Amino acid sequence: MDLGLSGRSAILMASSRGLGRACAESLAREGVHVVINGRTDADVNQACDELAGSHGVNATPVVGDATTSAVHDALLEACQRPDIVLLNGGGPPPTAFDDIDAAMWKDTLQATMVSPLLFVQRVIGGMQERRFGRIVAISSAMVKSPSPIMSMSHGPRLGLTGVLKGLSKSAVAHNVTINTMLPERFDTGRQEQMAHVVMKARGVTYEEARAQQVASINAGRLGRPSEFGDTFAFLCSAQAGYMSGQAIQLDGGSYVGLF
Amino acid sequence: MDLGLSGRSAILMASSRGLGRACAESLAREGVHVVINGRTDADVNQACDELAGSHGVNATPVVGDATTSAVHDALLEACQRPDIVLLNGGGPPPTAFDDIDAAMWKDTLQATMVSPLLFVQRVIGGMQERRFGRIVAISSAMVKSPSPIMSMSHGPRLGLTGVLKGLSKSAVAHNVTINTMLPERFDTGRQEQMAHVVMKARGVTYEEARAQQVASINAGRLGRPSEFGDTFAFLCSAQAGYMSGQAIQLDGGSYVGLF
Amino acid sequence: MDLGLSGRSAILMASSRGLGRACAESLAREGVHVVINGRTDADVNQACDELAGSHGVNATPVVGDATTSAVHDALLEACQRPDIVLLNGGGPPPTAFDDIDAAMWKDTLQATMVSPLLFVQRVIGGMQERRFGRIVAISSAMVKSPSPIMSMSHGPRLGLTGVLKGLSKSAVAHNVTINTMLPERFDTGRQEQMAHVVMKARGVTYEEARAQQVASINAGRLGRPSEFGDTFAFLCSAQAGYMSGQAIQLDGGSYVGLF
Amino acid sequence: MDLGLSGRSAILMASSRGLGRACAESLAREGVHVVINGRTDADVNQACDELAGSHGVNATPVVGDATTSAVHDALLEACQRPDIVLLNGGGPPPTAFDDIDAAMWKDTLQATMVSPLLFVQRVIGGMQERRFGRIVAISSAMVKSPSPIMSMSHGPRLGLTGVLKGLSKSAVAHNVTINTMLPERFDTGRQEQMAHVVMKARGVTYEEARAQQVASINAGRLGRPSEFGDTFAFLCSAQAGYMSGQAIQLDGGSYVGLF
Repeated sequence: MDLGLSGRSAILMASSRGLGRACAESLAREGVHVVINGRTDADVNQACDELAGSHGVNATPVVGDATTSAVHDALLEACQRPDIVLLNGGGPPPTAFDDIDAAMWKDTLQATMVSPLLFVQRVIGGMQERRFGRIVAISSAMVKSPSPIMSMSHGPRLGLTGVLKGLSKSAVAHNVTINTMLPERFDTGRQEQMAHVVMKARGVTYEEARAQQVASINAGRLGRPSEFGDTFAFLCSAQAGYMSGQAIQLDGGSYVGLF
Repeated sequence: MDLGLSGRSAILMASSRGLGRACAESLAREGVHVVINGRTDADVNQACDELAGSHGVNATPVVGDATTSAVHDALLEACQRPDIVLLNGGGPPPTAFDDIDAAMWKDTLQATMVSPLLFVQRVIGGMQERRFGRIVAISSAMVKSPSPIMSMSHGPRLGLTGVLKGLSKSAVAHNVTINTMLPERFDTGRQEQMAHVVMKARGVTYEEARAQQVASINAGRLGRPSEFGDTFAFLCSAQAGYMSGQAIQLDGGSYVGLF
Repeated sequence: MDLGLSGRSAILMASSRGLGRACAESLAREGVHVVINGRTDADVNQACDELAGSHGVNATPVVGDATTSAVHDALLEACQRPDIVLLNGGGPPPTAFDDIDAAMWKDTLQATMVSPLLFVQRVIGGMQERRFGRIVAISSAMVKSPSPIMSMSHGPRLGLTGVLKGLSKSAVAHNVTINTMLPERFDTGRQEQMAHVVMKARGVTYEEARAQQVASINAGRLGRPSEFGDTFAFLCSAQAGYMSGQAIQLDGGSYVGLF
Repeated sequence: MDLGLSGRSAILMASSRGLGRACAESLAREGVHVVINGRTDADVNQACDELAGSHGVNATPVVGDATTSAVHDALLEACQRPDIVLLNGGGPPPTAFDDIDAAMWKDTLQATMVSPLLFVQRVIGGMQERRFGRIVAISSAMVKSPSPIMSMSHGPRLGLTGVLKGLSKSAVAHNVTINTMLPERFDTGRQEQMAHVVMKARGVTYEEARAQQVASINAGRLGRPSEFGDTFAFLCSAQAGYMSGQAIQLDGGSYVGLF
């Protein structure tokens, strides 16, 4: 299927590893020039080399924390007229609700909600003028089924989802779509890290912790990053212009709710 | 993007025209052999000729009303081991709630809810054994925003959506996904027909009725059937196996609700 | 709190026992005259005696299956101008999806969805003219989290919920509200019956089956019927006229979804 | 209906006027001692005098901005063991998304989301120990149907709703419920203020602006604050202990979505 994206340009936050990297891979395969971002020099450069080498697209590295305005500047310098933007970033560690103080709330809200919205402000006008834009935020399945231990994650993410939904209603008239992806348990470093958290918290082995992750998914397996990346690429496609304001769950069919 | 579907087989109800036809087109383009169904001999045969001619796949005609068990038999004779099933059919006419009698409820429930479920019973076991299946139902955006005048449509469709959601939870463990698509206002014969309903009901011209349709969509245009077909094809893809139980809205970003 | 209901009249389907009976109790306590319905003569008469005796209201018995038009006639003969209607009825037994045939679908749809809608047709016009009406349907928490084994229950119930939601949008302008209640695991005969189903299916004792029911509820207990009845009474109150089209979950805080 | 609240104690933020005041009125009528809060000395004292005078309960004034920790301290000094807490506060003004800068986000998140959560941290443990608690947040119908011009309101409110939903899952085991109320267009000073915003923005008269408000509500009227207060009182009742994690819409039946 031709996604109609060849020659387009994308800025992808936190794309040197994990789900972000898979998104970059799927876009590059479709001929999209990509700006790759991550906190580690070596990771970012390696990702760029591999993507440019495999797919013959431009892959520009921007090293740094994508929640800062300095990195926002650098991303927009690397790609002044992005057609596609991936809003992505690390999540905060599981924390008991009682242990979250004002400063922790402020930091997680800034990183997970405010910072992506400030970046959207900088790109959405141009996308609307050029009559093409695809903004996709990687959120979490938890925004639809909140768990107290992850309050610092789903609180800000829900705020982000809501503001983006509002924006999507006016942007779509200009062929700018805004969608959210809600992953649950993909086979990335994040799940390995969560397994170690569970090992400590429950006194189980790594294998048991991983087996519990699999058991929590109706599909009976973790998701493959490439499945995520290809869904992202489809949401960015030319033919996805009539689909906006959606929250797409990629969770192995695990969400219990009807909608 | 390679959807990994080449050589697969699909049964598509009500696929000689409109959204069903667009779904068949997108699948055939990916190398899927298709069973085409519709009520009119000429339409079905023409669709088969065109699909086979353009894409070099087998396109088998089954003429008749897909809400009947006789046509279910014929569909399964034409394709005994379907990998993909599209549940689709015409919708009932707009009818005031007070005018719906017991017989009309019975008929619309049989056609729109019971009949597709009986067909699913006949295919889901085999799909699970073969460890590949994609079942997609075309429903309506109205199931999430019901309007009294369309009670005969959204009532049965909601029932269908709910039963399929339940089923999806167990089927996904066998790589059988079940998703629903919720279109609103695609540029097909259905919207032309609805425009004529509105012309009579409100005493407006055809152009005014069509303009009202466009004005009701945030995207400022009707959807293109090919956009629908390609989204359907993506849901059927090999890489969409981690995505199930979803209700995907294709409505030009018009749904007001967050989820 | 004065619910402003003294002297009002209510028709309550399936109200001689269980949740329906609790609804009748709460209304009668507020001075509402009630029509009590059930399939067993003795139960219905006993309920009427007790309600009239305790609360000094008129309690009129109508014995019979409230899914039939004959009983609809009798209910409306007993109360020609109802201010309040409770739509309620027994649920079908848990049944594997593959075992549901066309006749079973037809029966459960007739009983659980079509019959209540036909009754609503007969009362809603008068309520709107008199500018007061409260229609409440007892559904199930499962409509928002469908399980395949209960397809025959949640399928029709979702259809009903959707049609009522549509109707609620126009009825509220006439001070007629339509709401749905979604109970999960109240301490009634229904849960005892479900415990016996589980005993057979899983080979556990009655105590174990009951303990599993409690364990499935975040509140750590089953609901009390009087809690249900009082919530119903509040939804019927004069001051609840601005609240319509809602699906109220009474499930001990168990639903995982945000909305 | 006896709500079982006589002798209980409540802290009500922003309760000297509007919806908060109506909540205080309904609780005081049920014999609940109340802590009244607002920014204006005269308003708060007058509310206390009236509530104590009419209902014979203790009504304690706490003047100040309830988003500050100093006022949190004062509220908890006035009532050390609250049974009921109302989370409430003013909303930010309508603001175009492009005009919201980092400082404005920080302020609205602090006031509307973080501050109430910090207060919940201070009361929820005691409620759980004492095995009775009712926490209710006044949010906005907009959290389920976001509009870009109100991003500063629904963004933080959604975050708050999500975190509270998560918390509700564990708290309900201790008879502590947490619910959210989603009002739309009640006849308070807020709507008068919004009418003036609309007058300027669209160049209409006050009467036209008010008529537009009414026209946006399916009920054909604005809500009465006492309807809101009584619903709040019911959510706080002893018999509402099985109902938690719910988002109750009080919007004159206007929400278009099914759930």
